[in-house]
Amino acid sequence: MHLDYTRAEALYASQDLGQEIGLGERPALLVVDFQLGFTDPASPIGGDMSAAIEATVDLLAAARTADVPVWYTVVGYRPDLADAGVWPLKYPRLDALRRNTPAVQVDPRVAPSDAEVVILKQYASAFFGTSLHSMLAAARVDSLIVTGCTTSGCVRATVVDGMQYGYRVVVAEDCCADRDEAPHLANLFDMRTKYADVAPSGQIIKSLELRSGQPSRT
Amino acid sequence: MHLDYTRAEALYASQDLGQEIGLGERPALLVVDFQLGFTDPASPIGGDMSAAIEATVDLLAAARTADVPVWYTVVGYRPDLADAGVWPLKYPRLDALRRNTPAVQVDPRVAPSDAEVVILKQYASAFFGTSLHSMLAAARVDSLIVTGCTTSGCVRATVVDGMQYGYRVVVAEDCCADRDEAPHLANLFDMRTKYADVAPSGQIIKSLELRSGQPSRT
Amino acid sequence: MHLDYTRAEALYASQDLGQEIGLGERPALLVVDFQLGFTDPASPIGGDMSAAIEATVDLLAAARTADVPVWYTVVGYRPDLADAGVWPLKYPRLDALRRNTPAVQVDPRVAPSDAEVVILKQYASAFFGTSLHSMLAAARVDSLIVTGCTTSGCVRATVVDGMQYGYRVVVAEDCCADRDEAPHLANLFDMRTKYADVAPSGQIIKSLELRSGQPSRT
Amino acid sequence: MHLDYTRAEALYASQDLGQEIGLGERPALLVVDFQLGFTDPASPIGGDMSAAIEATVDLLAAARTADVPVWYTVVGYRPDLADAGVWPLKYPRLDALRRNTPAVQVDPRVAPSDAEVVILKQYASAFFGTSLHSMLAAARVDSLIVTGCTTSGCVRATVVDGMQYGYRVVVAEDCCADRDEAPHLANLFDMRTKYADVAPSGQIIKSLELRSGQPSRT
Repeated sequence: MHLDYTRAEALYASQDLGQEIGLGERPALLVVDFQLGFTDPASPIGGDMSAAIEATVDLLAAARTADVPVWYTVVGYRPDLADAGVWPLKYPRLDALRRNTPAVQVDPRVAPSDAEVVILKQYASAFFGTSLHSMLAAARVDSLIVTGCTTSGCVRATVVDGMQYGYRVVVAEDCCADRDEAPHLANLFDMRTKYADVAPSGQIIKSLELRSGQPSRT
Repeated sequence: MHLDYTRAEALYASQDLGQEIGLGERPALLVVDFQLGFTDPASPIGGDMSAAIEATVDLLAAARTADVPVWYTVVGYRPDLADAGVWPLKYPRLDALRRNTPAVQVDPRVAPSDAEVVILKQYASAFFGTSLHSMLAAARVDSLIVTGCTTSGCVRATVVDGMQYGYRVVVAEDCCADRDEAPHLANLFDMRTKYADVAPSGQIIKSLELRSGQPSRT
Repeated sequence: MHLDYTRAEALYASQDLGQEIGLGERPALLVVDFQLGFTDPASPIGGDMSAAIEATVDLLAAARTADVPVWYTVVGYRPDLADAGVWPLKYPRLDALRRNTPAVQVDPRVAPSDAEVVILKQYASAFFGTSLHSMLAAARVDSLIVTGCTTSGCVRATVVDGMQYGYRVVVAEDCCADRDEAPHLANLFDMRTKYADVAPSGQIIKSLELRSGQPSRT
Repeated sequence: MHLDYTRAEALYASQDLGQEIGLGERPALLVVDFQLGFTDPASPIGGDMSAAIEATVDLLAAARTADVPVWYTVVGYRPDLADAGVWPLKYPRLDALRRNTPAVQVDPRVAPSDAEVVILKQYASAFFGTSLHSMLAAARVDSLIVTGCTTSGCVRATVVDGMQYGYRVVVAEDCCADRDEAPHLANLFDMRTKYADVAPSGQIIKSLELRSGQPSRT
């Protein structure tokens, strides 16, 4: 399949889709599913996401320096997938993501600190079947910087829900990874035009440094 | 932007993504946002969706003949968009979708019967901020046939949520419409590989006729 | 049935239940279901709630003076109750709450301003099947002052959800009404000990005046 | 506090509240928070719930004999309560419910089988921040038999949500326990009149035996 977005780009612009939202007063950083089951190329559902992970290392440092709180998600199931609903009917290799195995651990290159919460989820959106929104509301967060994988899967679903739940969302595009570039770019297009801002991590880091008045500690 | 899905198609197949789910025991038909604000080419955010609407006419007839219940959604807001959350920051022309105007009425070509419920929503997913799932559970529905617009917007968000909420979902591909073919096809690809079955309406109609033992009344 | 709470009060205190939460930085006022179907004694499911409504008039004035945003909810259904799920099986007189009838209008004594949103809901909690939380997050609200009816029904369900969604909640006890005093007091007890602060409206008004630095305009 | 429900009982009856719903075609059994943190009298937030637990043993046996699926919930947190939202502000002893401690294990007297799912939750309702509804929908469950503790806390919140999500709910009254009888009875009254059926476990067991055509294996 080959897709030409030339006409769509012109049409969307003519309907004023894709205005810039801007970050809020109290952003949080959300790292979606950078777990070994996806980021280890040897995993049956994994791929090489090194570039996005390295970019996320810098973004994490900037967030922590600026006292922007960080949440992580991982997908994990019982061995019998009894907590996976209908999803394995479509995607049987979800059985690679068994709880209490390395596949469900956050990639050590972007490891959480002791104070940062890792949310265990079963579905695509970080909001679905979790209490993420309760933690964000209790912490008075009003906007989300989103990174992770895959762009066309859990990142997209999380970004749509983030907007729906009332958060201003910016996707750090070079901190998101997918199995292949075509769905990565197609989903960045949809998110940028309809739900969220999409920006390079360098620009987001600069904005966080401006807020905190100091360069990030790496 | 030009996207080549050749590598993605091979890679996804190698990871067994996109198995067929099959329809459940008690399907329902969900018609997403076929309202004049989108289906009237004269609307500031509308387009020509005639082919998808005509295909939906036949699917509706088959569903009604087979006693498959039908739900509709429409998007609608207060004139001041006070009930639209952060979405208008990205998509200001949502102000075309004012409640109690024709833009929020179901296109008469696919009009609901008196007994069919039209759900007013504010966001992309038909499940978000609505009690759709309560009606489906009370009616013991276990699967959804989804049609409507736009494929890359409200249809995609509804299909992802449908799977997340525990429903087997099939997308009637020729009954879905988008502003342009590129995002339409890119999102059918994502849905088919990760969340739902995607089938032509003719095949779904045949399956409904087999269930009810009679041809559909048009 | 006669209930003696003496032992419960001692036991709960010994387990440190019922600590004071305090109001947040950005409160909102939520007026639950003060609609004619409940507040008109002539309604088949109504009662005399005049005292609570009069107290709410003063609280509304204080909130508006202090620029605290206000949301309202009403319960309303289609005439065939097709959007009411299983609830009418238990509570058949919900059919008194038909949309587009006076029973679903906010009592004129506590009428909303043009800028204030009235949310139509189908269930007990103001959060269930609505996008209330999206509006609260978009407005950066972090706490809720709750009034309305009935204390043991929609107020209780809304307060539990308010806490669950991450909001600090205070119930204005004299601004809540029930069909009878026994369930009113039993539910204030549960809410105070487990989920929310419970305070007289006079105390809440004083706190709002302190914030805004001016007495409320009545 | 002493409460007299005589007037409320008459008034509710006059408004036809509290009709019987009946169990559905595919019930499930839900055991709410019978975990050692609540059921061990030595726990700082525990009490003696032996009678309710023993009654639940028999109900579990009947459900398993009748092939009625069973779900469990437990409440559990990180040691720093970072995943508990605002709730510890009201209820600081939630810190007794640390994950990976005995306080978060199901009481061995009502232990789950290997195939039964135990859902970890953070809030009162078994539906809040969990994917319980997805599992129920995927399993085509249409009704819930609810047991557990506390009646006035997590059982009540779960029952209200169960009705809201579209399930017919019956509360097994002698299989529910609270810290004290007064809130137990007050909440059974509210649930029976507004949201759910309330029945003794013996009657529910008889109904399950009728369905399966055989007495339960204990």
